Amino acid sequence: MEKWDSNEGTSAFHVPEWMIQFADQKQEFNKRPTKIGRRSLSRSISQSSTDSYSSAASYTDSSDDETSPRDKQQKNSKGSGDFCVKNIKQAEFGRREIEIAEQEMPALMALRKRAQGEKPLAGAKIVGCTHITAQTAVLMETLGALGAQCRWAACNIYSTLNEVAAALAESGFPVFAWKGESEDDFWWCIDRCVNVEGWQPNMILDDGGDLTHWIYKKYPNMFKKIKGIVEESVTGVHRLYQLSKAGKLCVPAMNVNDSVTKQKFDNLYCCRESILDGLKRTTDMMFGGKQVVVCGYGEVGKGCCAALKAMGSIVYVTEIDPICALQACMDGFRLVKLNEVIRQVDIVITCTGNKNVVTREHLDRMKNSCIVCNMGHSNTEIDVASLRTPELTWERVRSQVDHVIWPDGKRIVLLAEGRLLNLSCSTVPTFVLSITATTQALALIELYNAPEGRYKQDVYLLPKKMDEYVASLHLPTFDAHLTELTDEQAKYLGLNKNGPFKPNYYRY
Amino acid sequence: MEKWDSNEGTSAFHVPEWMIQFADQKQEFNKRPTKIGRRSLSRSISQSSTDSYSSAASYTDSSDDETSPRDKQQKNSKGSGDFCVKNIKQAEFGRREIEIAEQEMPALMALRKRAQGEKPLAGAKIVGCTHITAQTAVLMETLGALGAQCRWAACNIYSTLNEVAAALAESGFPVFAWKGESEDDFWWCIDRCVNVEGWQPNMILDDGGDLTHWIYKKYPNMFKKIKGIVEESVTGVHRLYQLSKAGKLCVPAMNVNDSVTKQKFDNLYCCRESILDGLKRTTDMMFGGKQVVVCGYGEVGKGCCAALKAMGSIVYVTEIDPICALQACMDGFRLVKLNEVIRQVDIVITCTGNKNVVTREHLDRMKNSCIVCNMGHSNTEIDVASLRTPELTWERVRSQVDHVIWPDGKRIVLLAEGRLLNLSCSTVPTFVLSITATTQALALIELYNAPEGRYKQDVYLLPKKMDEYVASLHLPTFDAHLTELTDEQAKYLGLNKNGPFKPNYYRY
Amino acid sequence: MEKWDSNEGTSAFHVPEWMIQFADQKQEFNKRPTKIGRRSLSRSISQSSTDSYSSAASYTDSSDDETSPRDKQQKNSKGSGDFCVKNIKQAEFGRREIEIAEQEMPALMALRKRAQGEKPLAGAKIVGCTHITAQTAVLMETLGALGAQCRWAACNIYSTLNEVAAALAESGFPVFAWKGESEDDFWWCIDRCVNVEGWQPNMILDDGGDLTHWIYKKYPNMFKKIKGIVEESVTGVHRLYQLSKAGKLCVPAMNVNDSVTKQKFDNLYCCRESILDGLKRTTDMMFGGKQVVVCGYGEVGKGCCAALKAMGSIVYVTEIDPICALQACMDGFRLVKLNEVIRQVDIVITCTGNKNVVTREHLDRMKNSCIVCNMGHSNTEIDVASLRTPELTWERVRSQVDHVIWPDGKRIVLLAEGRLLNLSCSTVPTFVLSITATTQALALIELYNAPEGRYKQDVYLLPKKMDEYVASLHLPTFDAHLTELTDEQAKYLGLNKNGPFKPNYYRY
Amino acid sequence: MEKWDSNEGTSAFHVPEWMIQFADQKQEFNKRPTKIGRRSLSRSISQSSTDSYSSAASYTDSSDDETSPRDKQQKNSKGSGDFCVKNIKQAEFGRREIEIAEQEMPALMALRKRAQGEKPLAGAKIVGCTHITAQTAVLMETLGALGAQCRWAACNIYSTLNEVAAALAESGFPVFAWKGESEDDFWWCIDRCVNVEGWQPNMILDDGGDLTHWIYKKYPNMFKKIKGIVEESVTGVHRLYQLSKAGKLCVPAMNVNDSVTKQKFDNLYCCRESILDGLKRTTDMMFGGKQVVVCGYGEVGKGCCAALKAMGSIVYVTEIDPICALQACMDGFRLVKLNEVIRQVDIVITCTGNKNVVTREHLDRMKNSCIVCNMGHSNTEIDVASLRTPELTWERVRSQVDHVIWPDGKRIVLLAEGRLLNLSCSTVPTFVLSITATTQALALIELYNAPEGRYKQDVYLLPKKMDEYVASLHLPTFDAHLTELTDEQAKYLGLNKNGPFKPNYYRY
Repeated sequence: MEKWDSNEGTSAFHVPEWMIQFADQKQEFNKRPTKIGRRSLSRSISQSSTDSYSSAASYTDSSDDETSPRDKQQKNSKGSGDFCVKNIKQAEFGRREIEIAEQEMPALMALRKRAQGEKPLAGAKIVGCTHITAQTAVLMETLGALGAQCRWAACNIYSTLNEVAAALAESGFPVFAWKGESEDDFWWCIDRCVNVEGWQPNMILDDGGDLTHWIYKKYPNMFKKIKGIVEESVTGVHRLYQLSKAGKLCVPAMNVNDSVTKQKFDNLYCCRESILDGLKRTTDMMFGGKQVVVCGYGEVGKGCCAALKAMGSIVYVTEIDPICALQACMDGFRLVKLNEVIRQVDIVITCTGNKNVVTREHLDRMKNSCIVCNMGHSNTEIDVASLRTPELTWERVRSQVDHVIWPDGKRIVLLAEGRLLNLSCSTVPTFVLSITATTQALALIELYNAPEGRYKQDVYLLPKKMDEYVASLHLPTFDAHLTELTDEQAKYLGLNKNGPFKPNYYRY
Repeated sequence: MEKWDSNEGTSAFHVPEWMIQFADQKQEFNKRPTKIGRRSLSRSISQSSTDSYSSAASYTDSSDDETSPRDKQQKNSKGSGDFCVKNIKQAEFGRREIEIAEQEMPALMALRKRAQGEKPLAGAKIVGCTHITAQTAVLMETLGALGAQCRWAACNIYSTLNEVAAALAESGFPVFAWKGESEDDFWWCIDRCVNVEGWQPNMILDDGGDLTHWIYKKYPNMFKKIKGIVEESVTGVHRLYQLSKAGKLCVPAMNVNDSVTKQKFDNLYCCRESILDGLKRTTDMMFGGKQVVVCGYGEVGKGCCAALKAMGSIVYVTEIDPICALQACMDGFRLVKLNEVIRQVDIVITCTGNKNVVTREHLDRMKNSCIVCNMGHSNTEIDVASLRTPELTWERVRSQVDHVIWPDGKRIVLLAEGRLLNLSCSTVPTFVLSITATTQALALIELYNAPEGRYKQDVYLLPKKMDEYVASLHLPTFDAHLTELTDEQAKYLGLNKNGPFKPNYYRY
Repeated sequence: MEKWDSNEGTSAFHVPEWMIQFADQKQEFNKRPTKIGRRSLSRSISQSSTDSYSSAASYTDSSDDETSPRDKQQKNSKGSGDFCVKNIKQAEFGRREIEIAEQEMPALMALRKRAQGEKPLAGAKIVGCTHITAQTAVLMETLGALGAQCRWAACNIYSTLNEVAAALAESGFPVFAWKGESEDDFWWCIDRCVNVEGWQPNMILDDGGDLTHWIYKKYPNMFKKIKGIVEESVTGVHRLYQLSKAGKLCVPAMNVNDSVTKQKFDNLYCCRESILDGLKRTTDMMFGGKQVVVCGYGEVGKGCCAALKAMGSIVYVTEIDPICALQACMDGFRLVKLNEVIRQVDIVITCTGNKNVVTREHLDRMKNSCIVCNMGHSNTEIDVASLRTPELTWERVRSQVDHVIWPDGKRIVLLAEGRLLNLSCSTVPTFVLSITATTQALALIELYNAPEGRYKQDVYLLPKKMDEYVASLHLPTFDAHLTELTDEQAKYLGLNKNGPFKPNYYRY
Repeated sequence: MEKWDSNEGTSAFHVPEWMIQFADQKQEFNKRPTKIGRRSLSRSISQSSTDSYSSAASYTDSSDDETSPRDKQQKNSKGSGDFCVKNIKQAEFGRREIEIAEQEMPALMALRKRAQGEKPLAGAKIVGCTHITAQTAVLMETLGALGAQCRWAACNIYSTLNEVAAALAESGFPVFAWKGESEDDFWWCIDRCVNVEGWQPNMILDDGGDLTHWIYKKYPNMFKKIKGIVEESVTGVHRLYQLSKAGKLCVPAMNVNDSVTKQKFDNLYCCRESILDGLKRTTDMMFGGKQVVVCGYGEVGKGCCAALKAMGSIVYVTEIDPICALQACMDGFRLVKLNEVIRQVDIVITCTGNKNVVTREHLDRMKNSCIVCNMGHSNTEIDVASLRTPELTWERVRSQVDHVIWPDGKRIVLLAEGRLLNLSCSTVPTFVLSITATTQALALIELYNAPEGRYKQDVYLLPKKMDEYVASLHLPTFDAHLTELTDEQAKYLGLNKNGPFKPNYYRY
């Protein structure tokens, strides 16, 4: 099966190299089937390591037989067989996981309640392709409660929680996903979602763009009935912008990746916590007094720096952008070139989205026991490939932790082989997933109910008012009490009392 | 003299009430000579009290005679009389102030050096209307060094430093400004800048919009030769957007108020320091353990909250915007309604831009010795008017500090009568003014040199690349070393090695 | 076997109840094989769950046979059989662990180098009873390098790392310890250390006081040759003070528990990190915005509060001591009674050393999903016993995590069953253990070499100068450069240039 | 008049040189009469600069005549002439100052209420020698309310607030003090306090030791009736310890300087705020991004570092004590020698208590515009004398701010001529003074009421329980609610429910 060619027909547009590289990478990735832990679930897909710390990820897996789900005949308790999961009998375990997740996703539960009366998704036929987790299940069942019909596949061949998939199938959702699909399985599952007799999707919820790609390639006519695409990932959003630039986007698409709440939570606030968590779980190191260089002072870098400074580390920052650099200065970090401090630091953290930020030359100059890890988007930030040379010895000392040993005995401690530390070695709090899932639900409602013509064949950000709504749904978690404008104040400010409260360019 | 009618012809556009109110307010302002400076004034001049820490603000004033400058015949040492200042003999004192300011404005000095060879403003005839301070003088002399001719008036009737004006006049700048102008003087000075035989401006640098307004009213034909307007203030920018909406803006205008560097510095970083400074200088209070409520969690509120938390205060936040509210939560502040904490707090700080955020009812319920002050844009955030009733006694205990005393003996401590605390009671570091002045200079260069058609008759933000350039000019202050992209990296990211480095919607 | 009677003969001294209780508790402890380690254990061993992030804790254990080590005949490669460990063949694995620990204990390694020439422990015969870990092994081998002979038993029936014990036995140390000793084994091992023909200890290094107790009971005459006791634990130190009060202490003893470096590191700095680590590993919760109450504002409480505040939690404090309470206020925490906030908080953390700080009544009033844990000395701070009633359901959801469910469905999340969170659910960095081990080594050297009469039959704190020396040995870890006094300055201050630098009452 | 010979008879004890130097310094100081600001009032005495920022310090002084108070005949409204102040007619102004201070000293007011019934100082005849300020007046009137008779002189020839002295005289306190005494006046005033017919003091409250010294020299027999001395200053306490060592202390003395609450507040918490205040008021500098070196990491240094780090400065620390050095590391500061960073820093702050910490060589190497100031005990920390050489030009740019200019044009900015910055350029919050005054009152009550024999002829620290009581009296300021031990808990901990709660060596 031919893969999505991410840079086709974009001659007029400058394509970043990493977009091209991505396509290649993914090809290779799917050929070498490796395993991904449960906690990567809201994130991108090119991970390949085992994370055994998760609690419930696999406790029923070991007893599973080796038969391919595609070869099994399974029916749920209501007699339906319109699904394909590992083992329908695991449904009860999955239901418990879903119930626990419901407790921590109050916004979706509130959405069920508030919008249930009017069923804003009545008539919606949503085809989805995301990680299949307890949190996704809460989202799907919310969509169902709002009136939608759903069919679902996994966006990643390793990330499916089989129990959760079983629970969804048991409660009537046509789910086609299991952990450890082959590439052929992957596309087969997607096809089973869309290629259904007598049922045609009118909404797409995608994470990575593969589902969208499949429909483009195989069933382009389907787009005539599709009201819109909601896309969550950086990668998928890039693909959509490219389609748009190339004039090939034929339905409105909603970019939920760049909504304020998602950005600030997934990056600043989440990384502020996960950098500490990831380092502790892998190395048990003490932060106090350690010298750290953080490459990149975007939201992720800001979060990492704030956390480490608070824990008593001495933090240096590198930046290419003078504005972010000035922010680093004002926030109390010395702005340096990596070369200036590479010999003295105890930890090197990359969060640039760039490639080869840490080169072999840097690695050669690091001091003994220096820890090197990546919190950024790209797994090429650290030139790990350059370390796979005969003169260096690799020693796996723990899960996700390698010692790379120089001929003179110097060791550097490489975490997660340079892949995302917080994906591989820490967890993403359900609270963050809740924000993303709520945003997805609202984006679907918005696109589905928008009057003809409000959205063209283009990529849109979520209207600010809905971003604000997502935020407001999460305030009760903190027992936070919002102030309401008086009529007089609203008039004075020229604002509607219900928002939106800020111009679009507001930076927060 | 008729004032600028800020809401003329904007029927199709929703005008915030405060814009309308502003016009009224200003009218009244000028009748009672208490017009105060905008934020960019480095030191509040309109205070009746003596602040003996001030450097040069007034040390030569006491010897001045009472003759109006308009009635004096003065010439500088080169024989020119094309200026009108208080006393040309004060030039030497002013020159010293300018020299001190030069030391702290390295970016402008660098700009002089870097751009001097090519004189990018050769031929520019700039008419300016800003506060006349040592920092402005450094800007003006930089513009001169870049090739421009300048004529200048003051944007505020009290903010002119007479010595600095004298120094500028002495070195050949036609300056028309003194401290304590009447309203008639104000417009006369502006007119002397633009109404010159044989000289017509082709660029406008404005702060508040009065100069622009004057030309619109009196010399509309002048706009034919004007290449653009650079406007720095919130108020002036609003006026320009209204003109634009009304289709009446007849030249390109550059909004430097909303550039990233200005916003983050003027608001977040500057207020983080000035809230402490303002409270200490007025009340000598101890911050540790105090309970504080901060109304509004925009950039100003964020700065105030961060500083007070760091000093050991317990901080509560009120917000109307759920996104900012969620940020407050994640940053560790309890989000409350003002009513919930008004009885218990030691300090109330407003930074909303809204009106009547603190009402008489709130004031009635505050505890004894509660301090109330405003860090926001508007001086109506605290309903000070409601305190001017017979049953309450006002007692001025220090400059900028009033005790308002209830019949039962309860006192609240009102700072700066509810006007901007950091304007009235603390100082704005030269470093912040340097960023603004550099941005203004670059905006003038950009507009003056832009190829025909790049800018239409609209209001523009400074191109991101120039924002980045301003930031880069200030990095040497911190001995900060920027990293440069390799060719390979630039290609990978799809970026030019010299920037811009971020999409326009990037939030920093 | 009769246990140490911790309050014998202390009629003249007020004995805290917890000291008495401790003895009882411990009795019971040893009957139910759940005795857990004290704080100095680098990794909790007594957990039934597998923590796959642990390095070497258990990877060779599974293959072990079930024969009691006491019944085995083992010899090391040099033919010696004077030891008793689980499996001498595991020596190689243990050696690797020791080597890794050596890298992170530079102070001990420096001590080896600096003091090696003169062998300050030549002639010393040290009997030790501590946790047997890689870090202890580095200490023992350092003592050996300094000239001492050592015999060693474990102070805890579960904390021994069998591989490390094997490695020590292999390199010639008579070690008597394995994981999972019975109580009888425990005392047998201790006895094997001291009851040796032709060898009598002249120094004791104890952790908990059991070894000291055994010698008191069984071989009181041995004290004639013993030059001193070095004791590390709170419990053991209390026992020694009681002996001293009762006039029964017959040799000098050094209290290393209360040395500055140990206190500040073990408590303030270490807990600042481990509270976050422990909460994350068990609950994956997000800290931002959470409301937390910390009971007790001693060093441990200060560390917990600082960390959580830095991560964006809203922290309340309870205290009984007005001085600590005032510190909490000045540090920015609201000082409350537990009752005032118990309904609203998301997390309750005890660090008081007191009992029943969190009562069943408090537990009844907590909100759903409230997390309850203990960072303090005592495992009775939370009245866990009160939760073991029929109407409440316990559900183990992860290792160390129980949901306790009320009849109405409310759950509280109890961590580590109320035992020390940082012992059970996080790790103690080697750096902290390094400080303690170095202090122990220096205390042994001091006592062993002290001139006759310097130390009486009393309990001493480490001389300040040695505390300072321990600190100085750890500075190179941070590439920290100490300033030296000039002669002139030393004279001016009335100080010796080499310290001590502070009076004894200095609080740091 | 011969001065106190601070090192007489101390042959057996090592006398720090600074103690000797102090005596010399003071001699010289009193010969050159200079002026001291109001805000130095709770502090040491060797200041000499004008601080005109204070509000009420001098508003009645200008109208004063030049007649020496000793030559005036004044009577208060009740006809008494037993006082000597500048002008009894200023009493009303002083009363208002005292009333304002009362509002901010709730602990003393509470003490008045709580202890008033039993008059614990009935019969006490207290002679005092302190700064005469509004806060002292609140203390004196509290002592009066508790039953004591008081006579008072000033401990500093410049610090007396004449209005307050007048108010005290008017309300019947024999006060002998005015601003601008000569040295002869100084001792005359003290003598008038003690040398009274028919009245002999039985308690001494001293600040600096001069009163104590005078009685030793002139009226040694008086000590027969004196129950004790309460001393507040570092200097006076040192003198007392020396007397004690020399066997010459003939009454018990209470060292209130080293009480926990005073130490932590005066140093850590107060300096955390005053370093920022002092720097802002003098230089208007921006803290963000500035590089700062703080010499000394005691309580003062800890406070300075924490504040500057929080404001976004990059802070380096120098230390001579390895324990404090290790704390600096763990708190996230790079520990350096001054030489390593002197070329790069923007600010140098000394807080060591040492001399010549910043030498001419360091000053020569500082970069242009570097700010140099002292927060420590000693005014010799910066070698200011070395800057008074012909090749350097001094330029006074503001009150307390000198530019010292090198031949090449480099300037350093020297604050307060190297004297205490927070004394000269910022304020001490009344809250801190309240803690000290309350401690003094309690110490007097304790010594006066102690049963015979509890206190010997030695120097004592305040009993911990009273330290705790002082703290508890200040908690209501923060609406802080202390938890009480249950009977069961008190028994468990072996503590009295009312304290003391900690062993004496507890470090807080």
